[in-house]
Amino acid sequence: MTEIANPRFLRPVTASDADVGKAITFDQPLLLDCGKTLSPVTVAYKTYGTLNAARSNTVLICHALTMDQFVASAHPVTGKPGWWDDMVGPGKPIDTDRFFIVCANVLGGCMGTTGPAETNPATGKPFGLDFPLVTIRDMVRAQAMLLDALGIEKVLCVIGGSMGGMQVLQWAATFPQRVVSAVPIACAARHSAQNIAFHEVGRQAIMADPDWKGGTYQLHGTQPSKGLAVARMAAHITYLSEIALQQKFGRNLQAREQISFGFEPDFQVESYLRYQGMTFVDRFDANAYLYITRAMDYFDLAAEHDGRLADAFQGSTTRFCIISFTSDWLFPTSENKLVAHALNASTATVSFVEIKTDRGHDAFLLDEPEMYATVRGFVNSVAASIGA
Amino acid sequence: MTEIANPRFLRPVTASDADVGKAITFDQPLLLDCGKTLSPVTVAYKTYGTLNAARSNTVLICHALTMDQFVASAHPVTGKPGWWDDMVGPGKPIDTDRFFIVCANVLGGCMGTTGPAETNPATGKPFGLDFPLVTIRDMVRAQAMLLDALGIEKVLCVIGGSMGGMQVLQWAATFPQRVVSAVPIACAARHSAQNIAFHEVGRQAIMADPDWKGGTYQLHGTQPSKGLAVARMAAHITYLSEIALQQKFGRNLQAREQISFGFEPDFQVESYLRYQGMTFVDRFDANAYLYITRAMDYFDLAAEHDGRLADAFQGSTTRFCIISFTSDWLFPTSENKLVAHALNASTATVSFVEIKTDRGHDAFLLDEPEMYATVRGFVNSVAASIGA
Repeated sequence: MTEIANPRFLRPVTASDADVGKAITFDQPLLLDCGKTLSPVTVAYKTYGTLNAARSNTVLICHALTMDQFVASAHPVTGKPGWWDDMVGPGKPIDTDRFFIVCANVLGGCMGTTGPAETNPATGKPFGLDFPLVTIRDMVRAQAMLLDALGIEKVLCVIGGSMGGMQVLQWAATFPQRVVSAVPIACAARHSAQNIAFHEVGRQAIMADPDWKGGTYQLHGTQPSKGLAVARMAAHITYLSEIALQQKFGRNLQAREQISFGFEPDFQVESYLRYQGMTFVDRFDANAYLYITRAMDYFDLAAEHDGRLADAFQGSTTRFCIISFTSDWLFPTSENKLVAHALNASTATVSFVEIKTDRGHDAFLLDEPEMYATVRGFVNSVAASIGA
Repeated sequence: MTEIANPRFLRPVTASDADVGKAITFDQPLLLDCGKTLSPVTVAYKTYGTLNAARSNTVLICHALTMDQFVASAHPVTGKPGWWDDMVGPGKPIDTDRFFIVCANVLGGCMGTTGPAETNPATGKPFGLDFPLVTIRDMVRAQAMLLDALGIEKVLCVIGGSMGGMQVLQWAATFPQRVVSAVPIACAARHSAQNIAFHEVGRQAIMADPDWKGGTYQLHGTQPSKGLAVARMAAHITYLSEIALQQKFGRNLQAREQISFGFEPDFQVESYLRYQGMTFVDRFDANAYLYITRAMDYFDLAAEHDGRLADAFQGSTTRFCIISFTSDWLFPTSENKLVAHALNASTATVSFVEIKTDRGHDAFLLDEPEMYATVRGFVNSVAASIGA
């Protein structure tokens, strides 16, 4: 099942066809939460490890806002190691010698899965803003179609951080019978007002860029690079803690002895942020950024259940392990705890680990030994319990 | 002294000449920290109350980044009440029946004081980026020139929040003999890496706007409104606490029953932020925003004293009252406390009040009874101690 044919592959915006791993195009229409349907739908994905004969060793990894399916292999555009390279691999916390790892690019993304940069079959042109709004649940539905195609009925574990964690919660709520265990990391059951506010700043920055051209920039051969870079810079600040920024950069100057009394990037933190913005635009599509941030804003798992979050998990047999980080102010421990409380209220099996770190939200992507130990222990224990 | 003549008044960007209160133009050159000189220099200001015969009842108020001299009177552009209308007035915490209140528009500003939007006498055109970088100390020097012209040798109290608090600290450090007491509110002795990072995002948003035109927009009849609005939106988030945003807006929708599945401002918080951005551009100059944010970034009082903050206040006889707010994450209590510790180390007289509030940084502008009571008590006590 790791060598899926690729019947119809839609060109990703930033990667060459050969690079995105594998992809499946589904002809059956996908009914979205907005009421519209998408057809065909392509899901690009990567797998690591081998599916066992019992088909019981799948770990589904859900990626965050600007991540992709390149969990543990080099990114085709940047050449950098996979974004969870220390988490996933032979002998690593999610052990590719034992487990079959699947990660799909999210619906609305720009690394091979159908998104706003792809060609709209109705017009022969890129979708742009004609692409329908997708939700976290729609992303999960597309992943379920992928698992169906791969012949995987149940996943041993679904795991992810940030928006990946939202998908984990949505998986457990929407397909509880398919999820043996779930590890939502550094996330929340809803996007807060502050979360929405930061996303709105990013979207306004993109839309303010005249090169965005109402979302039709592909037709004009332009790219709203400046707006997208500003959006990335603003978001990036929220991924780090105040203390992490202070420890990493403080007021250190960048390649100079004295302040310039001007608007050059005197401070290291400015230089760093500008670099983050500049490099981001080389690997990410601006409209995809708009759509995925909107999907996160719309995420509110309790709202699907008349405001009662516990009802989202009623009767669930999934085992949960929730992980948060002390210095994460984007998805603070308090939000993660609300999920734990809801799971307790629904009598689900849940463990909760708050990890002490100064690194802020991005800790889930970094070398955090306690996170690795927690994930390793939890996944192994779940695997042992079902004899996988 | 409240009826100062106005020998040479430079036009503010956003207010008509009649509106900015009073202004004095100084022909003596002002030597700036960057090494350049400014000449002439106009300082626009407002006064409230009456200077007593002993000239001992002056309260100097320093304004924050986007504020101005309209402390307790209607803003000439927006028509809104003064930004500290509940703090300053007859019978109010800073009592205009007893004290003579002075507030000057900062150097580099856009409400009448010399700034980048004013005419460069060397070219006859607006300064734009030819305006020299100014520092918080330069702002304070300009205010000292104003006090000289008003015949005020000593101020009973210098007070301000945020960037206003930075000026208060700078006043106490640079002109200790002129400052009887000082009330720095919600501020820090240095701009942190995170503070600089948010400012840099705002500046990049402005500079990314093609209507900014390298800072020469006045010559082209344009204004980088979109970029400035994005800058304001990003900054505005930092002025509020996460809990304030959640309590005020939560996930409430704006004038609709359901999400639109689009990019309209579905959520109240989006609508609010967009409004903040849109209205800001009507009253503020984009280049002034660049210059003033840079002045804040450069602020590092310890750096003037080889990294020893206590040395900035060595031998000071000024009485200090430091006020911080529990939910302020832009200038958190920890930063305010560093100032208090330095003052203790320099054996200055200092009291420190942390006020419990959910309102975040903006609390200093809001109805906070404990702040009012603290300021009232402190200023009255200082006045009594010198018989003012």
